[in-house]
Amino acid sequence: MKTAEILILGAGYGGIMTTLHLQKLLSIQEGRITLVNKHRYHYQTTLLHENAAGTAHQDNNRVNIDEVIDTKRVNFVQDEVCEIQTAEKRVLLKSGKTLLYDYLVVALGFEPATFGIPGLKEHSFSIRSINEARKIREHIQCTFARYHHEKRDEMLALVVGGAGFTGIEFVGELVERVPVLCKEYDIDPSKVRIINIEAGQTILPGFAPELVNYAYNYLKNRGVEFYLGRMIKTCTPDGVIIAQGDDEEEIKADTVVWTGGVQGNSLVGQCGFPTARGRVEVRKDLRAPHDDHIFVIGDCAVLYDEQTGRPYPPSAQITIQQAEGCAENIKALLKGQPLKEIKPEFKGTVASLGSEEAIGIVFGKIIVGTKAVIMKKIIDNRYLYMLGGFNLLLKKGKFKLF
Amino acid sequence: MKTAEILILGAGYGGIMTTLHLQKLLSIQEGRITLVNKHRYHYQTTLLHENAAGTAHQDNNRVNIDEVIDTKRVNFVQDEVCEIQTAEKRVLLKSGKTLLYDYLVVALGFEPATFGIPGLKEHSFSIRSINEARKIREHIQCTFARYHHEKRDEMLALVVGGAGFTGIEFVGELVERVPVLCKEYDIDPSKVRIINIEAGQTILPGFAPELVNYAYNYLKNRGVEFYLGRMIKTCTPDGVIIAQGDDEEEIKADTVVWTGGVQGNSLVGQCGFPTARGRVEVRKDLRAPHDDHIFVIGDCAVLYDEQTGRPYPPSAQITIQQAEGCAENIKALLKGQPLKEIKPEFKGTVASLGSEEAIGIVFGKIIVGTKAVIMKKIIDNRYLYMLGGFNLLLKKGKFKLF
Repeated sequence: MKTAEILILGAGYGGIMTTLHLQKLLSIQEGRITLVNKHRYHYQTTLLHENAAGTAHQDNNRVNIDEVIDTKRVNFVQDEVCEIQTAEKRVLLKSGKTLLYDYLVVALGFEPATFGIPGLKEHSFSIRSINEARKIREHIQCTFARYHHEKRDEMLALVVGGAGFTGIEFVGELVERVPVLCKEYDIDPSKVRIINIEAGQTILPGFAPELVNYAYNYLKNRGVEFYLGRMIKTCTPDGVIIAQGDDEEEIKADTVVWTGGVQGNSLVGQCGFPTARGRVEVRKDLRAPHDDHIFVIGDCAVLYDEQTGRPYPPSAQITIQQAEGCAENIKALLKGQPLKEIKPEFKGTVASLGSEEAIGIVFGKIIVGTKAVIMKKIIDNRYLYMLGGFNLLLKKGKFKLF
Repeated sequence: MKTAEILILGAGYGGIMTTLHLQKLLSIQEGRITLVNKHRYHYQTTLLHENAAGTAHQDNNRVNIDEVIDTKRVNFVQDEVCEIQTAEKRVLLKSGKTLLYDYLVVALGFEPATFGIPGLKEHSFSIRSINEARKIREHIQCTFARYHHEKRDEMLALVVGGAGFTGIEFVGELVERVPVLCKEYDIDPSKVRIINIEAGQTILPGFAPELVNYAYNYLKNRGVEFYLGRMIKTCTPDGVIIAQGDDEEEIKADTVVWTGGVQGNSLVGQCGFPTARGRVEVRKDLRAPHDDHIFVIGDCAVLYDEQTGRPYPPSAQITIQQAEGCAENIKALLKGQPLKEIKPEFKGTVASLGSEEAIGIVFGKIIVGTKAVIMKKIIDNRYLYMLGGFNLLLKKGKFKLF
């Protein structure tokens, strides 16, 4: 029996969890596991808004990959994927290296979707990676530090485009961060604006109306300016132009962060699969259409929920469950056994509004306030435990020690 | 007997120390003391290079003025001086207020001197205030954070123009800071350049050659690139163009900090006194020429040292001694007593090269290494003690607690 080459692309939630499951499930004879990732570290995308706001440091949100994988079982390659050649069953890397595979797991994550809005790509930030989150943090700090010299009001205007999960969580962190920034840079807090712009009529689409209202009122009472039912028409070096029907309005701001949409990594479309918003509609066993050797999971994949007839939302908990199923199906393939249908279970979701407020729904039950804050920490800490056991939990976990 | 109005402009070393002496020397009947300063805080100009490099936080280098003055004795006005009208004995402030005086102390400090070098004003930073130092720190951090996205080598090039006291002390801090920055922003330290450009043939003019060599070798061994005997011809948005004779060379750098010269505050020239590099040649009792009611001290004043026939250098220790003399002479004026000639004493000087190395001359004796580091701390701590007693020393002093 030949040892199978298993290649995993990306070490986000999907890639790292698939790797961890495979290194337990497979014997050395069954499979050689290779993991490719751009950075030497893994991070939690769902916490990047804290790094971007500056309320938490990026080192609390990343862990070196070789600290969580079994380096005797997994070959980690720090490199960038340039091309997936499915016919030749190989992957080309930026360094010039080529990796061959018998089975491929594509877990390359998301990109911001700008829907062709002019200027967004050039003049706005997106909360997409540790590097970009850190850039946002430093940009805000630098702009606040320059305020005393240039004294332009728009230097203190922070525009967040999009009122989905990430947008609102980021706004929540900014509410908490601004007083600290004002103290650090000797700025009058009343001059700072936090502006949230959303094309839809409410924030947090998909959440129960009472949670939406709770979050909206909480943030509004803390000074957040909401522009709902407004499209961003253009983003310029000076700010954004928003429109409602025929009415246009300019909001001047040195900082614009776009959280209004994501799509699958564009590499996935480039390798020939049919995609919608960069995402491949995978089969029930998570394999790509017409290719029995390629699994696609996480933000690059669309998997339909049979119960609702709608795709599962792109989220960490769904991806983590896909990763486990993906690893089991690879094991089944190697053993010549039938593959399982993967049916992730939606257990609930909690959105934080800074470190002291949150809203959510857990096992069908609505929670707000302290309960939701505690639940959010439990979710984050549970992930760390899954990832790196008790040691990692102690190192990076969210605890308040009294 | 009429109570005299004593007005002190500026709360740097000179202004704050004059205030502290006067509030002790004068009775309430003798004089009403008013202190005007742009900021609510006093800071040590000689430590700003640490704030600019980011090795020390600005809050360790500033103290609220109302924490050190006796607010029952001194009227503190936070405002900016716009004009001194000597004929009318009044001072116009930015807020529109006018202050009348019987005796005026001008202690408005320095400005960077750019010697007409094109572009320096627009494209370089100077280490002149808390606001500007913080701006330098944030600019470097933000540029390093953006490096992963733009990957231009010049983003990691730090040019320091001038190898005098401030320039070299700043370079010393940068040497210490760069490894920390590289860790924070995931940058390979070997890509970062610290470049010092000096028109003269050596660094630290005025220091003993053995100290100059010691400092030069220490910094060079830590990777600092020195361009000595080179003038900065132009500063551009891309860096600097330096010249040696007819040879020109461009050094690309996103960060250029100019420390190559200072001059007296330009307000002093505007009020009609003859000045050279913005400094008034004062009489031996520290009064301005032809005006018996105005004292000028610190970086706005030139006082000649009779022993050497040369002016005292603009330095904190000379200014602090002038402040004491100035207060005593105001007291003498009020009493109708003869004024003293002020002869500051040069006790020595220590230049730090980061927190773990220093060079200096103290009471005529050359010191380097640990001795000099300790002496520098003693000097800084002694000033805090003079300024705010034991409490302030405990709060802001430089100690290593084991």
